[in-house]
Amino acid sequence: MKACIIVIGDEILSGRTLDTNSNFIAKKLDLTGVSVTEISTISDNPDSIVTKLKEAFASDTNFIITTGGLGPTKDDKTKQTLAEFLSDQLVINQPALDYITQLYCTNGRTMNDLTRKQALVPSHSEVIINRYGTAPILWTKKSNKILINLPGVPYETQAMFEEFIIPKIKKEFNLPFIVRRSVIVVDYLESELATTLTDWENNLPDFVSLSYLPSGARIELRLSAKGTDKKLLEETITKEIKKLSQILHEKLISTTSTNIIEIIADFFSKNNLTLSIAESITGGNISHKITSLAGSSVYYKGGITAYSSLIKESVLKIPEPFIHTHKVVSEEVAKEMAIRCAKLFNSDVAISTTGVAGPSSDEFNDPVGLAYIGLYVHGNTYVKKYYYPHVTRDEMITRITNKALEFIYFEMIENK
Amino acid sequence: MKACIIVIGDEILSGRTLDTNSNFIAKKLDLTGVSVTEISTISDNPDSIVTKLKEAFASDTNFIITTGGLGPTKDDKTKQTLAEFLSDQLVINQPALDYITQLYCTNGRTMNDLTRKQALVPSHSEVIINRYGTAPILWTKKSNKILINLPGVPYETQAMFEEFIIPKIKKEFNLPFIVRRSVIVVDYLESELATTLTDWENNLPDFVSLSYLPSGARIELRLSAKGTDKKLLEETITKEIKKLSQILHEKLISTTSTNIIEIIADFFSKNNLTLSIAESITGGNISHKITSLAGSSVYYKGGITAYSSLIKESVLKIPEPFIHTHKVVSEEVAKEMAIRCAKLFNSDVAISTTGVAGPSSDEFNDPVGLAYIGLYVHGNTYVKKYYYPHVTRDEMITRITNKALEFIYFEMIENK
Repeated sequence: MKACIIVIGDEILSGRTLDTNSNFIAKKLDLTGVSVTEISTISDNPDSIVTKLKEAFASDTNFIITTGGLGPTKDDKTKQTLAEFLSDQLVINQPALDYITQLYCTNGRTMNDLTRKQALVPSHSEVIINRYGTAPILWTKKSNKILINLPGVPYETQAMFEEFIIPKIKKEFNLPFIVRRSVIVVDYLESELATTLTDWENNLPDFVSLSYLPSGARIELRLSAKGTDKKLLEETITKEIKKLSQILHEKLISTTSTNIIEIIADFFSKNNLTLSIAESITGGNISHKITSLAGSSVYYKGGITAYSSLIKESVLKIPEPFIHTHKVVSEEVAKEMAIRCAKLFNSDVAISTTGVAGPSSDEFNDPVGLAYIGLYVHGNTYVKKYYYPHVTRDEMITRITNKALEFIYFEMIENK
Repeated sequence: MKACIIVIGDEILSGRTLDTNSNFIAKKLDLTGVSVTEISTISDNPDSIVTKLKEAFASDTNFIITTGGLGPTKDDKTKQTLAEFLSDQLVINQPALDYITQLYCTNGRTMNDLTRKQALVPSHSEVIINRYGTAPILWTKKSNKILINLPGVPYETQAMFEEFIIPKIKKEFNLPFIVRRSVIVVDYLESELATTLTDWENNLPDFVSLSYLPSGARIELRLSAKGTDKKLLEETITKEIKKLSQILHEKLISTTSTNIIEIIADFFSKNNLTLSIAESITGGNISHKITSLAGSSVYYKGGITAYSSLIKESVLKIPEPFIHTHKVVSEEVAKEMAIRCAKLFNSDVAISTTGVAGPSSDEFNDPVGLAYIGLYVHGNTYVKKYYYPHVTRDEMITRITNKALEFIYFEMIENK
């Protein structure tokens, strides 16, 4: 089955807002076995909306999904346009009105006409109450296609899409389940790996497919199983990954994830190791990435953003003359930060960053784009130097964050 | 002038990759006075590309900008398709080949056919050497329109677009400059503000336009000046903002930015105040946001991610019985974290967060979605409670981060 997504919003065309809804919806549809064939972002005026809807209804897509453009202040024009396009008329939907009224009362506000108009919907559309906001979601059958109108607010749209729309699509169209899992393999060229896995691959059940996705020094093997019995799919994938691990041994470095943070979390938890972080140039971003993953408290003890030399001295206890002799952006200070950080947090492993994110040089005249990452592992220290002279501040912070995670990964996991 | 953007890539349609290029390009075009009328994301197969290009050439757009889809492994099909669409043929572009060869040599690799093919371009297209990668950028005139083909890698595309494409568009089409600046006003209803500003607004020069953009309790006033003399535009905007500030006094809380982090940075720097942060639930994200802004080291002393109770005890020095009595997610612990953080970092102001991001409750059985934010300002402490029972972990971290920044803003700046 196919879908197209129509993102309605002038604020996206002007670049004021980054659209994340279409990415979320595409990802969820992909996992349901529905392919997105096109995503269009258009202006929220009636003409553009009708033109695009006509195009979509003339195509071979099964689902037409819109986000935004039907909010309260735009209602008069665009919702009326939608009703006309559907050869229908707008009526007040009582359950939607009741729900909106209830939402407003609990928040102590009084209903006004603008809010009441949110309950106006085309009379033949099915209304799905929006549990995360006031704009109702519309599900309309027309010419053998399904038109789904969602609001623009990312949080409302994404939560409702995952919790209500995806299950409804699965149920109404009796779609198969798709179970996907990836493993990460290192130390193999793609062609060698394919040769090694020939027998195993030939014996995979029909309903399991395999993709090789090389990414740098690693290869992601992605197994997808499709069928109606979700439990069987999951068991089969688990069984096949177990076989893989018997063939590839320690070259298979992760059977649970392709995400470096998940791989690190997995490794630290399994080996009862603890981590702490001392950040200067990355300003808390490594800590943020690590804690984005649920369960990180098992191995992550904490971090410090030692943004100034003073804090490197007063909190991390690096002697002032040491910083002055070596300069704050140096191999020595990076190492010392990692050592002191491990001590402060009493962790087995510590990672540190120091560098110049720009736009101007630091007090020691170090150039923008220079950075060092220090790693402390059980009494040993390692350090790496990076120099990216032509990148923006944001890009520099992002790159050094990624390099720090890769440093832990390669030093402790891949080259173990 | 109008533009449309065509994003080419199956990885975007499947949701594996979030497209940020179109947002970047749209923003830069908007500032150049070029309106984006549509953004389309399509599959990287020749048929989809040709269909979409035909559509774009049949529309009233002046610029057709594509990203992605012309990378080395796809070259054979899609670049050939592009040449055929342009009734042209592919030829090796010598400067592009020289540049690619030089890039490869410095990195110690040897040229292969796949890489060499990157220098194949339609013979009538103008080639813009890509300083950030190997895929050349194409600028082609056809039927009174300009077709610009950019690579898909965000870093390359965005840097090249800003540094080479925007100046080229401005130069070739003699486009006016647009200078925009916004100020933030508080304590006014939109209608009251409009009345207060009537005289000033009526006396604005013709080439300056004004928009009211209310956002919560604040109103953003956006001034845009359009013309050929950039210096005059900037001076005029500065002069008008000075007049505004004489009318609105302390109700005009920022004349430099609409970004809460910039407003906070501005306020702390001007008042010689220092800030530190103790994060539990937000895991380093507030620190990351604060340090994303250049110059934050002037007022930001540093932060600690005290992810476990142990670290709250050992590093922040909150006594263990205190945490046990009040529970780690409590008003009292949030306050105490802020007080101890200010002491540890010797800062005037400290903000703290503690809460349960989920997916499961904490060791004290506090529910997922509960959080407290503590604020210490010169010996006084404030605390706020938040409860978002139905949000994801990421959304919870994002919300508490934003609430913490707003807490500083409202307590210290707006209600000062």
